[in-house]
Amino acid sequence: MTDNHAGREEAVAGGGLLHRRTLLIAGAASAGGLGAGLGAATIMRSPAAMREPGAPLSPYGTRASSSEVITRLLPDLPFAGSGSSRTPLERLEGTITPNGLHFERHHNGVPAIEPDTHELLIHGLVRQPLLFRYEDLLRYSRESRILFLECSGNSGTIAAPEPVQASAGKLNGLVSGAEWTGVRLSTLLGEAGVAPNARWVQAEGSDAAGMTRSIPLSICLDDAMIALFQNGEPLRPEQGFPMRLLLPGIEGNASVKWLRRLKLMTTPAFSREETSKYTDLRADGRAELFSLRMGVKSIILAPSFGFDLAGPGVREISGLAWSGRGRIRRVDVSADGGASWAQATLGEPVLPKALTRFRLPWRWDGGAATLMSRAVDETGAVQPRRAEWIAHYAGGQGYHSNAVQSWRVNPQGKVSHVYA
Amino acid sequence: MTDNHAGREEAVAGGGLLHRRTLLIAGAASAGGLGAGLGAATIMRSPAAMREPGAPLSPYGTRASSSEVITRLLPDLPFAGSGSSRTPLERLEGTITPNGLHFERHHNGVPAIEPDTHELLIHGLVRQPLLFRYEDLLRYSRESRILFLECSGNSGTIAAPEPVQASAGKLNGLVSGAEWTGVRLSTLLGEAGVAPNARWVQAEGSDAAGMTRSIPLSICLDDAMIALFQNGEPLRPEQGFPMRLLLPGIEGNASVKWLRRLKLMTTPAFSREETSKYTDLRADGRAELFSLRMGVKSIILAPSFGFDLAGPGVREISGLAWSGRGRIRRVDVSADGGASWAQATLGEPVLPKALTRFRLPWRWDGGAATLMSRAVDETGAVQPRRAEWIAHYAGGQGYHSNAVQSWRVNPQGKVSHVYA
Repeated sequence: MTDNHAGREEAVAGGGLLHRRTLLIAGAASAGGLGAGLGAATIMRSPAAMREPGAPLSPYGTRASSSEVITRLLPDLPFAGSGSSRTPLERLEGTITPNGLHFERHHNGVPAIEPDTHELLIHGLVRQPLLFRYEDLLRYSRESRILFLECSGNSGTIAAPEPVQASAGKLNGLVSGAEWTGVRLSTLLGEAGVAPNARWVQAEGSDAAGMTRSIPLSICLDDAMIALFQNGEPLRPEQGFPMRLLLPGIEGNASVKWLRRLKLMTTPAFSREETSKYTDLRADGRAELFSLRMGVKSIILAPSFGFDLAGPGVREISGLAWSGRGRIRRVDVSADGGASWAQATLGEPVLPKALTRFRLPWRWDGGAATLMSRAVDETGAVQPRRAEWIAHYAGGQGYHSNAVQSWRVNPQGKVSHVYA
Repeated sequence: MTDNHAGREEAVAGGGLLHRRTLLIAGAASAGGLGAGLGAATIMRSPAAMREPGAPLSPYGTRASSSEVITRLLPDLPFAGSGSSRTPLERLEGTITPNGLHFERHHNGVPAIEPDTHELLIHGLVRQPLLFRYEDLLRYSRESRILFLECSGNSGTIAAPEPVQASAGKLNGLVSGAEWTGVRLSTLLGEAGVAPNARWVQAEGSDAAGMTRSIPLSICLDDAMIALFQNGEPLRPEQGFPMRLLLPGIEGNASVKWLRRLKLMTTPAFSREETSKYTDLRADGRAELFSLRMGVKSIILAPSFGFDLAGPGVREISGLAWSGRGRIRRVDVSADGGASWAQATLGEPVLPKALTRFRLPWRWDGGAATLMSRAVDETGAVQPRRAEWIAHYAGGQGYHSNAVQSWRVNPQGKVSHVYA
């Protein structure tokens, strides 16, 4: 009836990985599928919900009942201005993160800004310094793009000597996906008139950290945006309301929130956030400064830590992949610790610099298995294995961690984080 | 510097419509753009927000301050079980509707359902009736798709003798866009085994209306889905938690929420919702039954009722287009009541059966103008003018209203709804 692999379960790699077009994965688990078979005369009693009117319309919906409360993952320590909350990736599906669950990273808390008092200054090496009110920016042509945003420090615990036992979101939840809408920065820079000797732009936020980052002018003239809306709504306060810089594919902190100032300069400012922080010390003792673009990466979310397997059978391996360089070309999955790999299905549309969902059916035979995913982007960049990534840096590296992550399933179905 | 039309404002149709690649639309409004020019030595005083730490991290974010409270549009009358709330389309951007603002349509309120007590029965003309628990469905292969959902009664007031003066969302807000994730229905039907004589599927919801609709089997075997997640999260209660039918491109009420039963039959059930309701009486006295697929349609959201223009100059015309038959191929915009048309830019990616954002720069010279948009889909179907749409139906038609809608701008900049 359909062009799937029902009834012909084709192993394509070790450890029980099945062909990506094996659709009937649960059906393949037993002769009759997962649905319980019934006699022809079965009568279903109407549930209680059908016997009395339900709740009314509401101005702004809320999430489902207590059994499904999903929140951002907050740190264990009290918040002292600087910190982050993480997206519970393993609880979510698809590629769009609801605004309420998008990760946060603040350097001194969330400022409360009235939009009619906020201004954006473009100055420095320009023909004419310009000052934009929020309502001015609302008059410009806009564009919308679905993009990932990832903190440079995401997945930093991969450098720990022993694998941290925590959920996929706790380990990797400083990445989220959203549809951002705003004004192309190149439009505003064009109006200000970029001086011929300008090479860098320093962006400053209107928070109590005075968060600043220096960004190559080339990035600002490429696809950078002054974002005003996220997933349809005006930005949330914790995402930079009323406006933020949004640099597709670039480490999150450079997409400066509560943006108030862009200064064009000949050199970077070499601020604290780009010297003592957000630099990468290599094994050879040299530091990589302004390593802004996020590497190609993928993580498996199902199965993952905290979701132990109830028993053998067929299930779907699912996760997210992304690259700061463009589109994901392919994701390979291994169930035997990297000895063999099978190509996963990528969810359409595969968009540049956006989260891409990958899926692959897997028959777990009840033995020990080690699950890994490895992404390749359209430039040909391949996600590194952990040993390769570790070898590149000096000890203590916590930024730009895009190494392959591994989940071990033991014969009892327990899932743990391992280095493999 | 960029390949835009800065400095060469090219009129492409009457009433001031500009070429769609005219990027610097606000810049074109005055010599120096909208940003205020400043002296080189301007010093900005740090705002209050930079002088004290901001608010902490939060488990689930909230929207921005009081100046930006956006809610669904509730009806004026008290809710008596059956009713709808609308998406405030004119306040939103992009193509993704936040879950809290997705339109609602209930036939007897929102039931509160615990997922572990909910079951889905597939029965009737099948080889083996099957009963699925929520946790069973979570084991199946999933797919994610960005889709529009539109109530059959959306924009029904276009049939009123005089144009209703109301916001774009009030008139047309029974449409929203989201990324839905679930299980292909064809997979489950394949497991149950469809009998050769089955032609229709009756879907029943677990609400106090016992909402039922009959759907051609061909649609159920095509791209129908049992949706479990919306924009990443489990479904909201008002969107059918724990599971709903999701029929891409089909009128909303057929995507039965709180889905509990799918019965395969030889004919439709001809229930109340498909005889007294949701049928279209034609001018020739015949009724169109099961006119399930939504037509090609577009609406202008900016400018629109409630957002009067402050003064002449260049601004962006922006709106949404969609078709139940597939992708939007083009959207044309008129500023002179349909005398001339210019092609708008479509926001990428243009996805099948999904909302597509269109944009076009427009110089308003301060005279009267009548704005219209007209969409064409990939099958070649063209959105009808109002007179053409009206002529097709008997009086009182309120369903499947996809006629071109017109906004009149008067010389004072006031925007009103007109028939043109």
